[in-house]
Amino acid sequence: MTESRNEILLKEGEKVDDLQRNHLKIIQDTDRFCFGMDAVLLSGFAAAKEGDRVLDLGTGTGIIPILMSAKTKARSFIALEIQEESADMARRSVAMNHLEDRIEIVVGDIREAGTVFAAASFDVITSNPPYMTNRHGLTGENEGKAIARHEILCTFADVAKAAGRLLRPGGHFYLVHRPFRLPELITELCAQHLEPKRMRLVYPYVDHEPNMVLLDCVRGGNRRLTVEKPLIVYRSPGQYTEEITEIYGY
Amino acid sequence: MTESRNEILLKEGEKVDDLQRNHLKIIQDTDRFCFGMDAVLLSGFAAAKEGDRVLDLGTGTGIIPILMSAKTKARSFIALEIQEESADMARRSVAMNHLEDRIEIVVGDIREAGTVFAAASFDVITSNPPYMTNRHGLTGENEGKAIARHEILCTFADVAKAAGRLLRPGGHFYLVHRPFRLPELITELCAQHLEPKRMRLVYPYVDHEPNMVLLDCVRGGNRRLTVEKPLIVYRSPGQYTEEITEIYGY
Repeated sequence: MTESRNEILLKEGEKVDDLQRNHLKIIQDTDRFCFGMDAVLLSGFAAAKEGDRVLDLGTGTGIIPILMSAKTKARSFIALEIQEESADMARRSVAMNHLEDRIEIVVGDIREAGTVFAAASFDVITSNPPYMTNRHGLTGENEGKAIARHEILCTFADVAKAAGRLLRPGGHFYLVHRPFRLPELITELCAQHLEPKRMRLVYPYVDHEPNMVLLDCVRGGNRRLTVEKPLIVYRSPGQYTEEITEIYGY
Repeated sequence: MTESRNEILLKEGEKVDDLQRNHLKIIQDTDRFCFGMDAVLLSGFAAAKEGDRVLDLGTGTGIIPILMSAKTKARSFIALEIQEESADMARRSVAMNHLEDRIEIVVGDIREAGTVFAAASFDVITSNPPYMTNRHGLTGENEGKAIARHEILCTFADVAKAAGRLLRPGGHFYLVHRPFRLPELITELCAQHLEPKRMRLVYPYVDHEPNMVLLDCVRGGNRRLTVEKPLIVYRSPGQYTEEITEIYGY
């Protein structure tokens, strides 16, 4: 975090996107992984209290802590990212938004996070991890995109293990993933005593299969899940429902 | 199955309900546990192929095998019930519908089912087990109702264990339960290698939390779940959606 607030440099291929909330902006590279609706919905689903210490596992361009810094009064966000290029973009986005006091981008491996940070030292952990197993369905993507989307450098078990170790008892782990992975998500989370307490399925249309699942787990929570009402994205093609419009903050 | 087809006796408090399908009827006692929409939805969600041998764990009045006998070409249904009074009603309902050749009611304990029947001897298993843990929320209910609704005589782990042992590899276990139990359902099912392959949540209205979950698990199946589109019950108060009307077969 040594960049000056007044001269954030864009590298070749990068662009600045307006997040439509509190004048926040983010640097992205269309040739690399760009954030999607999942990150925005997770930021809306997650909560953090005043003074909380928050960790984002696999932050990419830093979208989740940047959005959550506006939506919550959390004291600090640590954002862990294994890819140096993404972390560098995230760091410059933090500077561009004058958020250096609250968000710190750390380059590192989720598989080693349990030893890099102190055990039980976070009140809230968030993650929008890679969805696809191994290199399943991988075609001509570049390596950076592939790492963000596929479990190449870490599996969901690694993410759950890190969260289980770093979250304080009673703390919340919020994640977004694909519904087809639910049996594995739930078994791995429960194995780490990250008890699913709230689940919301995101359906593109009311008569479609869901394509995202939002989970709120409590470390050491009791065994009782609330499945919330469906989150439906589109009323008609291209027309967001009221709830989606609200989450996006338009 | 010794009753004559022509003289099915009703006991005090019992009534005969028309199932609105193939002229099927069922004997119920309003003071005891009566079947609900869950059993009807499970019968619609479950499938059985020609010649299949089907087991229903905790059959109550026999509603699931009676409905499935009309919807499928399964060869035989064994319906296990621990309560003698319910099993007796179920047996008379089977006789009343002339289904003695296909449905056999067996009095017995789910916890002992694994030794009563041969391992891996069923192609399909169905269950609408008690939903509530222990005697949670139990007030003045009579014992029969309480046993049908609460995990007094068996837990979900017992049901999953019986199904895991009695189902042939590749066979399907269909169940209906409450969404708040999902983390436990999934962990217990996976522990028995009953891999959830299809899940459908039942929402009373499109903007309500779901109150039922339908699961289709395959013994030894691969780890990939399809979460289906929402099953919505009411269009407006008292007005079923088209899909529900179709499942009920009105």
